[in-house]
Amino acid sequence: MSKIKIVTNILQTNDEITLKNRRLLDEKGIYVINLMSSPGSGKTSLLERIIAKLKNDINIAVIEGDIYTTKDAMRIEAQGVPVVQINTGGACHLDGQMIKDALNTLTLDNIDLLVIENVGNLVCPAEFEIGENIKICVLSTTEGNDKPSKYPLMFEKSGAIILNKIDLIDYTDFDKKEFYKDIKSLNANADIFETSCSKNQGIDAVCVWLLSKIKNKKVKRK
Amino acid sequence: MSKIKIVTNILQTNDEITLKNRRLLDEKGIYVINLMSSPGSGKTSLLERIIAKLKNDINIAVIEGDIYTTKDAMRIEAQGVPVVQINTGGACHLDGQMIKDALNTLTLDNIDLLVIENVGNLVCPAEFEIGENIKICVLSTTEGNDKPSKYPLMFEKSGAIILNKIDLIDYTDFDKKEFYKDIKSLNANADIFETSCSKNQGIDAVCVWLLSKIKNKKVKRK
Repeated sequence: MSKIKIVTNILQTNDEITLKNRRLLDEKGIYVINLMSSPGSGKTSLLERIIAKLKNDINIAVIEGDIYTTKDAMRIEAQGVPVVQINTGGACHLDGQMIKDALNTLTLDNIDLLVIENVGNLVCPAEFEIGENIKICVLSTTEGNDKPSKYPLMFEKSGAIILNKIDLIDYTDFDKKEFYKDIKSLNANADIFETSCSKNQGIDAVCVWLLSKIKNKKVKRK
Repeated sequence: MSKIKIVTNILQTNDEITLKNRRLLDEKGIYVINLMSSPGSGKTSLLERIIAKLKNDINIAVIEGDIYTTKDAMRIEAQGVPVVQINTGGACHLDGQMIKDALNTLTLDNIDLLVIENVGNLVCPAEFEIGENIKICVLSTTEGNDKPSKYPLMFEKSGAIILNKIDLIDYTDFDKKEFYKDIKSLNANADIFETSCSKNQGIDAVCVWLLSKIKNKKVKRK
């Protein structure tokens, strides 16, 4: 029993810190995305494409979560937006405290969109709220269409699902019909996009949708 | 402090159960692989190819670890070898107790090779011993060559690393030179193979290597 109790306490503590993160981010009027996927699905590439498209219209900041290395943060920094790298040092997901520490290092005034790129992992990150307005999950066609049914929590909790590497679908046995059927049964309300970051396809639709989300948050706040 | 103590106890308990699993498997002369990767790198496809190649020469059994579904176990069962499905019900890795329970349902006499396919996750499974003789890690070219440096533990602990979906490499920006350089610095002793499961390439070399490992274990035991 004591073991179960302690796990509960850890989650409670995370929820309390996350609530404070969320209040701070709401006060500042920042729309926050928790971006998640398996390693190598294309989270950072997608983010590069979105930033390139939107950085002249809105102010974007990024928190990069990685176990080790600053490779992703360096890619984002090259886009000319503020970025903070969290190295979890082994931990398989970001949590509220890590985000709190990262927020302390960012100037939050005048930011419209904060994207938090989580550790590449289709399992654990879905279990932890970190102060986001929406979870977005990226799946690449090369991973196979069976992933939503095998890793359902991530797909259930995501407000939007991005099917990336759509340019490679003809080289795989990815069954799009099965994919949409599974998503519909897990999470009928999710917005779904198809993209190719390498070919710069489908990014416009994601950006238009994103701008409407950001605008909607600002209108609600007024 | 109490939190740290309990985590230690959990790991100690896992180590004790794992040691018993290992002794049992050693007594039976079974060579055991802990097969790990991100979701969708091709673990099950690789296993299908290996079984098809080796099942007339040696006796193979499989333990399939998945969070939910029996999809992978059904694919393996179709190959005509004994298979046990573990559904972790949310947990992101297999542990010693799960393997102990699975071993209780298998007839262990006359098995030469037991493959344990872990939950698709490039992070957590590497932290838990489950009674294996060797860890094998699969990385697919579509995930990118930066994954060993970003998720080093998995690649450090693996006795063999299989670079899969080699047929798709020309459609990606995967830099093979960087990949081999990173692996060399992380784990110079690892055996490395390049495969394409969809094109049935490179499987023979994996099988020859695997047979020598199995033979070596049997010789040592005599």
